[in-house]
Amino acid sequence: MQDLQTHDLEMQDLVSMALRYQRGELHVLDQRRLPAEEHWHVCRDIDDLVSLIRGLAIRGAPLIGVAAVVWVAHRAAQGDDAVTLASAIATLRASRPTAVNLMNYLDHLQAELDRDIGNAALIDECIAIFEEDVALCDAMSENGAALIRDGDRILTHCNTGGLATVGVGTALGVITRAHLQGKSISVWVDETRPLLQGGRLTAWELGRAGVPYRLICDSMAAGLMARGEVDHVMVGSDRIAVNGDFANKIGTYSLAVLAKHHDVPFYVVAPRTTIDPDCARGELIPIEQRDPGEVRGVSGSFGDCSWAPADAPVYNPAFDVTPAALVTGWILDSGVYTQQDVAGGVLAKVYKELTGSN
Amino acid sequence: MQDLQTHDLEMQDLVSMALRYQRGELHVLDQRRLPAEEHWHVCRDIDDLVSLIRGLAIRGAPLIGVAAVVWVAHRAAQGDDAVTLASAIATLRASRPTAVNLMNYLDHLQAELDRDIGNAALIDECIAIFEEDVALCDAMSENGAALIRDGDRILTHCNTGGLATVGVGTALGVITRAHLQGKSISVWVDETRPLLQGGRLTAWELGRAGVPYRLICDSMAAGLMARGEVDHVMVGSDRIAVNGDFANKIGTYSLAVLAKHHDVPFYVVAPRTTIDPDCARGELIPIEQRDPGEVRGVSGSFGDCSWAPADAPVYNPAFDVTPAALVTGWILDSGVYTQQDVAGGVLAKVYKELTGSN
Repeated sequence: MQDLQTHDLEMQDLVSMALRYQRGELHVLDQRRLPAEEHWHVCRDIDDLVSLIRGLAIRGAPLIGVAAVVWVAHRAAQGDDAVTLASAIATLRASRPTAVNLMNYLDHLQAELDRDIGNAALIDECIAIFEEDVALCDAMSENGAALIRDGDRILTHCNTGGLATVGVGTALGVITRAHLQGKSISVWVDETRPLLQGGRLTAWELGRAGVPYRLICDSMAAGLMARGEVDHVMVGSDRIAVNGDFANKIGTYSLAVLAKHHDVPFYVVAPRTTIDPDCARGELIPIEQRDPGEVRGVSGSFGDCSWAPADAPVYNPAFDVTPAALVTGWILDSGVYTQQDVAGGVLAKVYKELTGSN
Repeated sequence: MQDLQTHDLEMQDLVSMALRYQRGELHVLDQRRLPAEEHWHVCRDIDDLVSLIRGLAIRGAPLIGVAAVVWVAHRAAQGDDAVTLASAIATLRASRPTAVNLMNYLDHLQAELDRDIGNAALIDECIAIFEEDVALCDAMSENGAALIRDGDRILTHCNTGGLATVGVGTALGVITRAHLQGKSISVWVDETRPLLQGGRLTAWELGRAGVPYRLICDSMAAGLMARGEVDHVMVGSDRIAVNGDFANKIGTYSLAVLAKHHDVPFYVVAPRTTIDPDCARGELIPIEQRDPGEVRGVSGSFGDCSWAPADAPVYNPAFDVTPAALVTGWILDSGVYTQQDVAGGVLAKVYKELTGSN
């Protein structure tokens, strides 16, 4: 037990903007209540955690995955046996069927468990996953911040910061890193309809970090570019094909076309783990249709409003795909890659380097 | 009085989608309550009408102007003297300082009053203004509908139909006319943040007219164009410069850039009265900034929600300007004009023909 307690102590260092493992308890910031209220929820059991994930209190693909991993570490530290841990892993894996990080992380832990590595080594694996996310974010933010000059005005979409990862984030991590480097920057924040991750979460993160920003409706970006008020567009990604096409929150492709028209550099910021080595090009990425109610109105802890006719037919894709041809640079943890690099197959190569596969 | 009563009877024909003059009473459809409720408000006095205009129960530049004109006709029919009528005109003129049609119409009526034309002739002028709006809409919709083929999918922005005019509308008038011609068309309706005229009003109008449509968030138009699902973009205009640049609801310029990138024909639909002969080019059109609260949330008879940080800095322009270079055609009541026509000065010419000025 001495060994497990030592690991439990180590887990006290697992603290991020939206997740804290402290004194043997997993605390999660309820993102549904932001920005009005910073409410931390203590996860008492696995059903609690699953319901927070399903209810979008915990969001952002890396954060969901790491939260599940920390729960597994917690139960391992409490001395659960391999059968009980496997059951927890299966329950968590089913909580968000489309979350790729969640599945990859938990499949990895289950494989380790199958190798009978013991609880202490399993906890080490969990801590390594947490620390890898932090390190990937750090590397991306350093690589990306080097592109930002004093005075730059950066436009971003959705939420890609410390609320979506356990590190500083992807696109928003680059932006806050440039600010911390002392560069005088400002940010245009797309509200990101329909779910308003920009208006609710990115605005909250930037306000908290003291980075000057202004909130806009998604349709206002074009006019800003025409007036020369945008120096870079920086966005995250949910999946990158090996040819450099990528899927991201609906509205990203619109920004890419607008940026091209106005000669504004357009960057995608993501860890190498976002590359899908089995996806040759963007048109192969399936696009999920979401609930029509999201477009007929808004709903959240801030209230519920529905303004459209109750039976209004709706088209509501969750993502769109941006072709590589519109991307100025791919800012990954391993470096910044150009059109030429990507055409030369660099994405498949750096993915292999990360995973050690051949 | 016999003469006035005859005119009063004639005014019973003044019926549009959102305005009715019947049995000596002005009824106005309260657009704030749409689409949930079709509530008609009877204007008891001028303060009533001014408060409906200020509160956006009556919206759309032509409709606001004609509603004020019908009120003046109503008071003239009731036998108000010239001093009382002039006072009403002044009060109405101040109700929405930026509404160009309102000012032009009322200035014209005041000039007629100054010529001492008498109440009966003044009522004739008012009826002529109403009928001119209907006729302009009819002419635009005929001109535009000729461009629409069976099977076309048309994307539109904001509300430009029977709720914005006393006729069939501008861009939406073209669309509904094509439908009435028996063409099998469908419409993509931009919700039009921040004030949601598309989600609330255009969706309601199209549902009522039986035109197939689907509601989208403004950021979804680009993905639809990439998939080849948009055959035309049709929008209205608040002001057209003589070089063909035009101002319209924020988000219009974004659609123009996207349409250009995807080779989708982009049309602006407006009456010749929208041409500003004193405005040489779009950059001279002033762009009003609106209340930050509109971007921090939504507010209406459907409810109030605010999701952004209460102190979130906001950029909220009411309009943007689309340069002539991005426009495929200008659909006016007098005809459809090409890039070449507009470069040759046709807009100044057709405006002069309308107004009879030299």
